Amino acid sequence: DSHASPSGGTLKLAVIPGDGIGQEVTAEALKVLEVAAPADVKFETTRYDLGAERYLATGEVLPDSVLAEIREHDAILLGAVGGKPNDPNLPPGILERGLLLRLRFELDHYVNLRPSRIFPGVVSPLANPGDVDFVVVREGTEGPYTGNGGALRVGTPHEIATEVSVNTAFGVERVVRDAFSRAQRRPRQKLTLVHKTNVLVNAGAVWWRLTQEVAREFPEVTVDYMHVDAAMIFMTTDPSRFDVIVTDNLFGDIITDLAAAITGGIGLAASGNVNPDRTTPSMFEPVHGSAPDIAGQQKADPTAAILSVSLLLDHLGHTEAAAVVEAAVIADLAERDVATTRRTAEVGDAIAARVGG
Amino acid sequence: DSHASPSGGTLKLAVIPGDGIGQEVTAEALKVLEVAAPADVKFETTRYDLGAERYLATGEVLPDSVLAEIREHDAILLGAVGGKPNDPNLPPGILERGLLLRLRFELDHYVNLRPSRIFPGVVSPLANPGDVDFVVVREGTEGPYTGNGGALRVGTPHEIATEVSVNTAFGVERVVRDAFSRAQRRPRQKLTLVHKTNVLVNAGAVWWRLTQEVAREFPEVTVDYMHVDAAMIFMTTDPSRFDVIVTDNLFGDIITDLAAAITGGIGLAASGNVNPDRTTPSMFEPVHGSAPDIAGQQKADPTAAILSVSLLLDHLGHTEAAAVVEAAVIADLAERDVATTRRTAEVGDAIAARVGG
Ligand SMILES: CC(C)[C@H](C(=O)O)[C@@H](O)C(=O)O
Ligand SMILES: CC(C)[C@H](C(=O)O)[C@@H](O)C(=O)O
Repeated sequence: DSHASPSGGTLKLAVIPGDGIGQEVTAEALKVLEVAAPADVKFETTRYDLGAERYLATGEVLPDSVLAEIREHDAILLGAVGGKPNDPNLPPGILERGLLLRLRFELDHYVNLRPSRIFPGVVSPLANPGDVDFVVVREGTEGPYTGNGGALRVGTPHEIATEVSVNTAFGVERVVRDAFSRAQRRPRQKLTLVHKTNVLVNAGAVWWRLTQEVAREFPEVTVDYMHVDAAMIFMTTDPSRFDVIVTDNLFGDIITDLAAAITGGIGLAASGNVNPDRTTPSMFEPVHGSAPDIAGQQKADPTAAILSVSLLLDHLGHTEAAAVVEAAVIADLAERDVATTRRTAEVGDAIAARVGG
Repeated sequence: DSHASPSGGTLKLAVIPGDGIGQEVTAEALKVLEVAAPADVKFETTRYDLGAERYLATGEVLPDSVLAEIREHDAILLGAVGGKPNDPNLPPGILERGLLLRLRFELDHYVNLRPSRIFPGVVSPLANPGDVDFVVVREGTEGPYTGNGGALRVGTPHEIATEVSVNTAFGVERVVRDAFSRAQRRPRQKLTLVHKTNVLVNAGAVWWRLTQEVAREFPEVTVDYMHVDAAMIFMTTDPSRFDVIVTDNLFGDIITDLAAAITGGIGLAASGNVNPDRTTPSMFEPVHGSAPDIAGQQKADPTAAILSVSLLLDHLGHTEAAAVVEAAVIADLAERDVATTRRTAEVGDAIAARVGG
C-alpha cells in the first residue's frame, strides 16, 4: 500500500496546523522534518485549514470531501485544535468529536501511542522521579469515546444522560497485541494492563481475558495488572516501574496527561494516532491543546510537535531519521537554560540546526 | 430522624472491619472513637463480619437481612474489604459490587467526601506541593458505577461488552448543591467542576448545566471548570489551587487516589460515604484497601481509619470531638520520626492518648 513506503520517493503529508499555538508549533515541526528527511525522500505537504477558526467562519468541521482527500496521504501532522474556552459559538465537543475524534475513528487509529521519558535536564514536579521511560498504548477507537449514549428530557429536572463504553474482543485484542509486540522489542519486556476490572466488570473481563490470551504469544513479556486508581499512586511514587502500559481510551487519556506532567509537562509530550495495519494514514500530534491565551506570541514550546515528527518518521520506516530528531531534541533539552525563554521559532531553529549539523 | 442526633444519648454504630489490614486499622479507629466521644454520648457498636473471608467461607457477600440490620444504625465504620489479588475463588468485582458499592447505592451515599491536605511533617512525592487543602466531593450513586451494561458472546472473538454511565439531573444536582454548600463554608469559597465535557458530551452537558444553575444560589462561590485530563496536570504542578472539587463517580475515584498520593499516600486518606439527607446511616472508611500482603503484621498505618472517625463524628454533629481527633492526628504526624516504624497499635495508642489528654 501507499501509506508506509520505507524506501525513497515522495511521501504525501497532510498538515492540519489547527488553532492557536497549533500554527506556531507546526511550523517548527515542519522545519525540522525538512532537514531530517532522508536525502532520497521528499515530503509533499498539503495544508488543511480545519479547527475552531474554520468552524466559526464557515460552520464546517470536517467536510467529507476533505476527509476523503486526507485519506489519500501517507501521514498526517496535526498541531492543535480548539477555540477560546467557553466560546458560546463553540458547542462543547464540536471540534473534539467532529474533527479530532472523527479522524481517529474514521482512520481506525486504534493505537494511540504516547511515550513518556524524563529527558536529561528536564525538571519533573516529582522530588524523586527516578529513571522514567515508558510508553502508553492507549486504545483509540472504542471505550467511552464512541459517542454512544444520549439524553432524554434534556434541560429538565428529569434529564437522564448516558455514555456507553463499547469494548469489543476485536478492538481490545488488536491493541493489546500491538502493546505486547512493543513490550517485546523493549529491553525490560514488561506490560501493565491498567483498567478498573473490579467495578467495570463487563469491559474489565474482556480486557483481562484478552491480555491473558495474547500474553501466551509473548512468553518473554512479564505481565502485570493495575487498577486505574492505583496507577495514579504508582505514577507519582514509582513511575520508573512502568515499561509498556496498555489501557482503554478514557483511562489512557487521563493517565497520559499525568505521565506528561511528571515527565516535565505537556510541552514535551508527543503522540501518534497509529493504524498499525497501515491501511490509512496515521496522525501525529502533540498532546497539548491550542492554548489560545498564548497564541501568536511565539511563547509556545514546539518540542512536543517536533517529537511528534520523530514518531511520524519512525512510523514511516525512517527509523534513523526519527532517532536523529529525537537525539537533537534530547541535546537541546539537556542544554536549555531555564533562565532564558526562547521564542517558538528559536527552539525550532536550534533543533533543526542540530539535525542538519 | 435517628441517624444524626447531635445531642447526647446512645448512637448505634455498625462496624465492618472487613479483610486484611481492615481488621487492624478498625481496632485503632474504635480505640480513638472511644476516648473522643463526648461524655454524654455512648457508641453502641455491632460488628458485622463481611468481606472476602466470609464470602470464601460461606458464599455470602451481603445478605439482605444483614443490610436491613445495618440500615437501623446511626453510622457505619468500615475498614477495608478484598482478598488476595487474583484469587481464582474471588471473581473480580464480587466484593466491590456486591458489598462496598451495594452499601453505597442502597444507602444512597450520594456524597463521597474525600478531604486532601498536606499535614505538617508529611512528605509529599511532589518537590514543591505548596499549601494543599482541598476536598473532593465525588458523586457516589451514578456514573459508570451503576452496573448498567453487559456483555454478548462472552469469551468468543465476537464478544462485545458495554458499561453505561448513567447521569440524572436529580443525581447530579443534589451532589453539586452539596459541593457548593461546602465551598461556601470554606475560606476560599471556590468550586471546580471536573469532567470531560468535550468528549462525554451528554453526561458533560448535565454536569455543566446544573453546575451553572446551582451556582446562582451561591453567588459568593467562584466557579471553575477543568477537564479530567487537565486536572492530572494541575494536581501535580499546582495542587494548592483547588478548594472544593465536584466530579462524577469514576473521575472521583481516579482523582482522589492521585490526591491521596500527592498529600502523602493513601495511608492518610480518609473518606465519608455520606447521605446528607440523613435518611440512612452514612459510612466512613479509609481510602486504602485491605493490603493482604502486610495483613496481621501490625505494619499498617491506622491514620486514615482514625481520620475517618473524625469525619464520622463531624457528620453526626459532634464537631468539637471531630476537631479534637483531627488535631491529635495532626500533632502525631508532625512529630512522627520517619526513621522509626511504629506498630499499628502504637500509632492508635499515641493518637488516643493525645485525644484523651
Ligand atoms: C481533545 C480531546 C478530545 C483529546 C482526547 O480526549 O483524546 C485530548 O485530550 C487528547 O488526549 O488527545
Ligand atoms: C474498591 C473500589 C470499588 C472503590 C471504588 O472504586 O470506589 C475504591 O477504589 C474507592 O475509591 O473507594
